[in-house]
Amino acid sequence: MLNQQQLDQVCVILVRARNPNNIGAVARAMHDFGFRNLRVVNEYAVPFATARSAVDASEVLAGAVEFGSVADAVADCTLVVGTTAVGERALLHPLHALPEAAAEISEAMARGGRVALLFGSEKTGLSNDELSHCHWLLTIPMQKHEDLRHPSMNLGQAVAVCLYELVRETGIHVGVGVPAAAEAGEVERLTALLTEVLEKTGYTRRHPANCDEAQIRRLVLRMGVAASDAPVWMGILRQMLWKVRGGEAKDE
Amino acid sequence: MLNQQQLDQVCVILVRARNPNNIGAVARAMHDFGFRNLRVVNEYAVPFATARSAVDASEVLAGAVEFGSVADAVADCTLVVGTTAVGERALLHPLHALPEAAAEISEAMARGGRVALLFGSEKTGLSNDELSHCHWLLTIPMQKHEDLRHPSMNLGQAVAVCLYELVRETGIHVGVGVPAAAEAGEVERLTALLTEVLEKTGYTRRHPANCDEAQIRRLVLRMGVAASDAPVWMGILRQMLWKVRGGEAKDE
Repeated sequence: MLNQQQLDQVCVILVRARNPNNIGAVARAMHDFGFRNLRVVNEYAVPFATARSAVDASEVLAGAVEFGSVADAVADCTLVVGTTAVGERALLHPLHALPEAAAEISEAMARGGRVALLFGSEKTGLSNDELSHCHWLLTIPMQKHEDLRHPSMNLGQAVAVCLYELVRETGIHVGVGVPAAAEAGEVERLTALLTEVLEKTGYTRRHPANCDEAQIRRLVLRMGVAASDAPVWMGILRQMLWKVRGGEAKDE
Repeated sequence: MLNQQQLDQVCVILVRARNPNNIGAVARAMHDFGFRNLRVVNEYAVPFATARSAVDASEVLAGAVEFGSVADAVADCTLVVGTTAVGERALLHPLHALPEAAAEISEAMARGGRVALLFGSEKTGLSNDELSHCHWLLTIPMQKHEDLRHPSMNLGQAVAVCLYELVRETGIHVGVGVPAAAEAGEVERLTALLTEVLEKTGYTRRHPANCDEAQIRRLVLRMGVAASDAPVWMGILRQMLWKVRGGEAKDE
């Protein structure tokens, strides 16, 4: 996991965001991934004020800072990255797909600088003037659709995906709760018991081609029995044996 | 990129989603990343009907299929993966963080099966009964906050992040538009011209410690001049030289 000091090196900057719900969604995604520095550049104070006054507004929104211009908002950052949906506009900046971009951002963070991630308005994205403050651009790889001239993503979702990618490498916890496999000896006991059941139930007589020892062993191995499940299966098979041996007769 | 056949192997299944806006956001994220199979399991038809009737409802919503139960919704899938925010509930399933989960899902897709990705209701997530249909669970690695008992993510954002991870590896396009670097010979000409400018402007006399040849060369190399920018810089330096040599005198 990134520590809080590292997370605080990243500033999410919303430029001309129009929809208060989107600003709220951005703040929520930041909170989810542990980022705290939200900056807002907006001529109109209304969307930000509305988002901030929402009932479930987060600490991130409470701590957000308003700036009068992109230049002011990025002034203390050593790396400024713009986000773009790669429309028809000719790009004047280097462009990285998000996975590579995140690697570059991590390097910049390791050098100790503050990194600005700029997101433009829902409708138009970042203007050329706003993009001119950026060292380079990143884009989230998306599917090209013939019906859409400008593929674009919902603002809250785009921020969530970008921040996920930034913490992705550091947040992996491997296979929690993947059950321990049964030991080979237990699998062998299970195989023996199953073999007995197949014989006693007449399956072996009906399908002899399925029943040589190695075939049954492979069949049981492919179950991938968990250590904790082995006694359960043993009990099930023993119960079957009991039944076919005569428990049956008494029950009926 | 995954081709459409591969993308169509994935079914996003929303179980008891309550908010029509969230259902719409899920459909939008699916469209962005090229997925088309949306399934909805809901006792109440209202949220889905409302989402579907939205003005900007996508093709994905139009093609979504309703099911009466989780069992029916996953019946044709060979791998069923539940999503969870890992709250206080004891987990009865193996759990993978999203990056590993995506690798396992890709393997299942390569074997030709259909994969179900289940998302529970915004408020409660998937119930234990719903989870019992899953082979294993995935979780999006998030920051632990002391103030939240159950960390959870907005439904639309969670789906966007999961689908991004599925196409992530396949969608990388490397450094589009990263400009070609200038050749060393051009950098050398630039260094020579800058040296001349420094001498003519008196900088070398004032700061001799900064001006040995190797220092100036390293300074220019650190600019990382793009091939297309080299002539621009040459022009700027030539103009400076012209000015300090006498163009100046005529202008004044």
